[in-house]
Amino acid sequence: MAKLRAVLIGATGLAGQQFISALKDHPDIELTGLAASPRSAGKSYVEALRASNGMTAWFVPEPLPESVAKLKVMSGEQINAQDYDIAFSAVESDVAKDLEPRLARDIPVFSAASAFRYEADVPLLIPPVNAAHAPLIRAQQKQRGWKGFIVPIPNCTTTGLAITLAPLAEHFGIKSVLMTSLQAMSGAGRSPGVIGLDILDNVIPFIPKEEEKVQVETKKILGTLNAGGAALTPHDVSVSCTCTRVAVMEGHTESVFVSLSRKASVQEVVAAMREWRGAEVARQLPSAPPRWIEVLDEPFRPQPRLDRDTHGGMATTVGRVREDTVLENGFKYVLVSHNTKMGAAKGAILVAELMRAQGLLG
Amino acid sequence: MAKLRAVLIGATGLAGQQFISALKDHPDIELTGLAASPRSAGKSYVEALRASNGMTAWFVPEPLPESVAKLKVMSGEQINAQDYDIAFSAVESDVAKDLEPRLARDIPVFSAASAFRYEADVPLLIPPVNAAHAPLIRAQQKQRGWKGFIVPIPNCTTTGLAITLAPLAEHFGIKSVLMTSLQAMSGAGRSPGVIGLDILDNVIPFIPKEEEKVQVETKKILGTLNAGGAALTPHDVSVSCTCTRVAVMEGHTESVFVSLSRKASVQEVVAAMREWRGAEVARQLPSAPPRWIEVLDEPFRPQPRLDRDTHGGMATTVGRVREDTVLENGFKYVLVSHNTKMGAAKGAILVAELMRAQGLLG
Amino acid sequence: MAKLRAVLIGATGLAGQQFISALKDHPDIELTGLAASPRSAGKSYVEALRASNGMTAWFVPEPLPESVAKLKVMSGEQINAQDYDIAFSAVESDVAKDLEPRLARDIPVFSAASAFRYEADVPLLIPPVNAAHAPLIRAQQKQRGWKGFIVPIPNCTTTGLAITLAPLAEHFGIKSVLMTSLQAMSGAGRSPGVIGLDILDNVIPFIPKEEEKVQVETKKILGTLNAGGAALTPHDVSVSCTCTRVAVMEGHTESVFVSLSRKASVQEVVAAMREWRGAEVARQLPSAPPRWIEVLDEPFRPQPRLDRDTHGGMATTVGRVREDTVLENGFKYVLVSHNTKMGAAKGAILVAELMRAQGLLG
Amino acid sequence: MAKLRAVLIGATGLAGQQFISALKDHPDIELTGLAASPRSAGKSYVEALRASNGMTAWFVPEPLPESVAKLKVMSGEQINAQDYDIAFSAVESDVAKDLEPRLARDIPVFSAASAFRYEADVPLLIPPVNAAHAPLIRAQQKQRGWKGFIVPIPNCTTTGLAITLAPLAEHFGIKSVLMTSLQAMSGAGRSPGVIGLDILDNVIPFIPKEEEKVQVETKKILGTLNAGGAALTPHDVSVSCTCTRVAVMEGHTESVFVSLSRKASVQEVVAAMREWRGAEVARQLPSAPPRWIEVLDEPFRPQPRLDRDTHGGMATTVGRVREDTVLENGFKYVLVSHNTKMGAAKGAILVAELMRAQGLLG
Repeated sequence: MAKLRAVLIGATGLAGQQFISALKDHPDIELTGLAASPRSAGKSYVEALRASNGMTAWFVPEPLPESVAKLKVMSGEQINAQDYDIAFSAVESDVAKDLEPRLARDIPVFSAASAFRYEADVPLLIPPVNAAHAPLIRAQQKQRGWKGFIVPIPNCTTTGLAITLAPLAEHFGIKSVLMTSLQAMSGAGRSPGVIGLDILDNVIPFIPKEEEKVQVETKKILGTLNAGGAALTPHDVSVSCTCTRVAVMEGHTESVFVSLSRKASVQEVVAAMREWRGAEVARQLPSAPPRWIEVLDEPFRPQPRLDRDTHGGMATTVGRVREDTVLENGFKYVLVSHNTKMGAAKGAILVAELMRAQGLLG
Repeated sequence: MAKLRAVLIGATGLAGQQFISALKDHPDIELTGLAASPRSAGKSYVEALRASNGMTAWFVPEPLPESVAKLKVMSGEQINAQDYDIAFSAVESDVAKDLEPRLARDIPVFSAASAFRYEADVPLLIPPVNAAHAPLIRAQQKQRGWKGFIVPIPNCTTTGLAITLAPLAEHFGIKSVLMTSLQAMSGAGRSPGVIGLDILDNVIPFIPKEEEKVQVETKKILGTLNAGGAALTPHDVSVSCTCTRVAVMEGHTESVFVSLSRKASVQEVVAAMREWRGAEVARQLPSAPPRWIEVLDEPFRPQPRLDRDTHGGMATTVGRVREDTVLENGFKYVLVSHNTKMGAAKGAILVAELMRAQGLLG
Repeated sequence: MAKLRAVLIGATGLAGQQFISALKDHPDIELTGLAASPRSAGKSYVEALRASNGMTAWFVPEPLPESVAKLKVMSGEQINAQDYDIAFSAVESDVAKDLEPRLARDIPVFSAASAFRYEADVPLLIPPVNAAHAPLIRAQQKQRGWKGFIVPIPNCTTTGLAITLAPLAEHFGIKSVLMTSLQAMSGAGRSPGVIGLDILDNVIPFIPKEEEKVQVETKKILGTLNAGGAALTPHDVSVSCTCTRVAVMEGHTESVFVSLSRKASVQEVVAAMREWRGAEVARQLPSAPPRWIEVLDEPFRPQPRLDRDTHGGMATTVGRVREDTVLENGFKYVLVSHNTKMGAAKGAILVAELMRAQGLLG
Repeated sequence: MAKLRAVLIGATGLAGQQFISALKDHPDIELTGLAASPRSAGKSYVEALRASNGMTAWFVPEPLPESVAKLKVMSGEQINAQDYDIAFSAVESDVAKDLEPRLARDIPVFSAASAFRYEADVPLLIPPVNAAHAPLIRAQQKQRGWKGFIVPIPNCTTTGLAITLAPLAEHFGIKSVLMTSLQAMSGAGRSPGVIGLDILDNVIPFIPKEEEKVQVETKKILGTLNAGGAALTPHDVSVSCTCTRVAVMEGHTESVFVSLSRKASVQEVVAAMREWRGAEVARQLPSAPPRWIEVLDEPFRPQPRLDRDTHGGMATTVGRVREDTVLENGFKYVLVSHNTKMGAAKGAILVAELMRAQGLLG
């Protein structure tokens, strides 16, 4: 099977760079087009990254692939969608609003932006959790008259939470969730992102719009595709969050309190997470980790620096699973999820792999 | 009125140093005795701090008062309690178990150690919250045959939580609390405390015994002294915590979810905290801040580095007060409390001031 | 004597805020005018600081003085220089090039910007070091036809170096200096300054233009005013630097290797620094610290967090004075200097105090 | 050729763990014995790491190899040297003094400890720099009557400095070096190593004994083995250092000023480093990187977090090569070297590989 030709929009930003790094050596997808803002258009990618101070603004730890360095950058307007099989989007939400639909008329768009996450005909996919929602794009295509479609991934803070709630919802049912996040700086990007003076020796207890996103997205992801496949019913779990920023490079930590629908023991809860394999179709995807959740027994884990890269940043690590005495059938645990791998570029690529495996790309 | 002569046990550790710094220029208390481990005994205080590598192990930012530097350090055994009016204790819990009762036979002991916090005849005092519990020491004295008594202060993580819950309990009643803490490194002391390699670019999601302490202490502090004054009934609020450590020097941040006993608006909750003045007897104490709680309106506050020193580290700052949709009559907020000021030495001194004001020292 | 009425340009940035904080309660200077960019003009200062996200962008730890909060902000063009006795400048260098001369036509301008530092008729003043250079402004006034003048302060990295070299130059002569700086983040300001993702767990080994500034400024500051008072001869010491950025909030650390003109002992070098009182006229200035240099004997000092605030951030702390075996009559030491106090706003205010004391304002 | 059977002493500490991690999958060496303190003796390695608080004290990022986890730990006394071909030593210097000679009676000992570095018959090896010193062990064996020998590696701060000086010494000659280091926390280990409270928002300007080590070791490493092969003449370069600690996990940064023996251009200096391949015998060693030095052209590099892992932590990265105007034929540059890879365990393994390649093991 030929490799899918992919165009990446928002290629020069930190999120775009993570897509480039994640697509290097991908077995099924080849990055053949790059787009960025008009002031980068016409330059080679490496030139577009060159700042006025002489620095190459390449920020991911892995080196910039040489083949990508030479690619010529287009503006969004210059993209000819027919030249590609799929698009990845790493643009800001306001740019996404215009550009993603234009591409979706012709090709599938897998997006890290929030612009379309809350539309009724747009699934919000985490392959092991809700691969079953993928066919909703048929309704999207029909309704919007598109040949392609838009599938966004969730906010990076939602991802680990939804993944750990999925086995609990399946085995015990879940009624409510209270979560406090300790989020890494990389989630804020670099323009300017989190300023060093603000975060050293400090915690910032507010991330604009983050809590609302997690609260709405979690319910949508855990929801159900209606019989006709044309609409999603959100899960009726109630979710409440407080999101904070800490001096961590990568890896969001979340302190979760959850109320189950029925009695369970700590052992059962741990086993439910540990043995969870998620949707069958997702298990064999090229980017799938051996397990989606790793439950750690050591009391001081998970820690973002030690655990964020578990299974290439694609696994959510969980620890400190205990009973909670406040909520009905309450349990509490701590999770760490890699916000710029499973929670961003690699997560979006996984969705593209899923759609291909499900035969939904054509 | 003559100044109270105070002896400090555990004088060389970080907690002891904070007592020394906090007692400098105190209007009513004079530090006239210092005790530490036998290997310090006989040395002047500044000599006792001198490490083998030539460094003076004085760690609080304010300079070591010269009068204290010259004081000769005793071992615990060498203390003659009759030479002092009160004692402050900054020793570890296992030392406290032996030494504090020995001193309490003769004089009041105000302790930062946890050794006696959970005894039935021992009040756990935060002056604005539960000054009314102070008379329990009469029962303690009677039962134990002591002329003095022991009054510990709560764990530093309990303090800010209990202070912010107090006005809510008074105005609305409280049913349950779920709290996630982001605690500063100073709470762990220096022997070795938190290792740099463990905390940089990281979060440690477990602090041994901390959660149990907060859960039990909060109920005790918010409880009621029985009619006869001989026993405390804990508050029936249920409390559940997850305590984590972050790369912050000083100042614990806590993300709180609370269920009130009756309906309230955000405005009422904010007003309850903002207007709260606490026990009348506590307001005029020398170390009392103008307000015990400062509610900040800015969405990005409170932050530990910016807010921990509010009113000399004696105020708890609160922000992000919002409704919570999960708990019944639920609200959520974030607080910052200075763990080594109001939460430790200065908090214990405040208790000594309270007992004096209540006429309970004699 | 009436207080000097001062206008501050660049009032909303971090450097401007430091001026506001430093001028609070100043005995001789009153801040009566504020200017910033046109988009702030017409607003009250506190409104001008209000960001779109609801945050008040006030970044210095001390609270914003209420009297300043209410002042109406002007654009640079709206300033009527006749309404003020002096001006302080916290603008960027490109703005300084236009605005400072316009003000200097009428009133003295004390500037933290680098725009005029290297002009032949412009003294670069550190009061204890080179108060004798101050009369150069007479030549500046004559040459430029100004009633006022411009006096910039040095780059914050130069300040501590020049101060510690001054007593060595006086006592022993100095031939060459090799310095490596470990600079705090606050020196880079906040727009965006140092990005958290770049500095955590890291060192940045380059600060554009910084090394050249230090190399040139040090020679100028330690130079000599010619007989006629119309020109400065730079000191012939050769200076070579490598400037790096580290994850420190405030306080520049510098590792200095210096070659003296004649033999000396460590004791003599320490004594020269410790006993140095600098220019007599500078000793009694309102902002002068009791000593300009504090030499610490402990081997692990100075440290930026522990020592930057010595004497209100106006003293340079020195430690680890040792012989160096490479350079002729070589010595090496480490210094810490507060880059945003003595090295910025408070340093500029000290210069204004000096000029007033020298009768050079009128 | 059969794999070499290696015993590791000091196996449970951080340095020991780095040896274990570095030896995993080594083509020529198999770790078959582990020794640690008597309280670990008799336990399996993973049990020996289990702390009383339930944590497994395994600190390197890569997982503990399962084959090693099961190995039984010996005390130093229980080692039967005849069971092994070589030994690696990660013990503290005082333990090394006793234990290393006992093993060296029978087998070669490759040590990260400083105990024997300064003995006249002990070479201090960095394979690309001074493989020619290796035969000194024949003199050592003869003199001490050992069948084995001891070869220590240099202090981690010396390594990068000596590597970058080597091509300069070869091409231009070097007369003097002034160096300021900004060292990572991992160099201090974990017992307790650097305390978080000491290093956050701070620099510590002193590392006991470090400067002397670098000054002496650099001269020894760059020295010459006498004709008879029985003694080393140190290089006559003079070296002076100031060593500081910064809040970096891994990777020492060094700011170097060097005086060459003859004139050179920046281009020549860069080329000398960039094209340097070091001793021929070292190039093909299993752990050798493709280049020992990587010179980076970007002005903001090298940075420890971005560059420490270049070529698996075995390359020294260099940047900011400039002329220095103070020293005769002066140049300055910044280097980053991985202190716990090339500067510790992997560096010692490289030395073992070298001795094997040189036929000096038998």
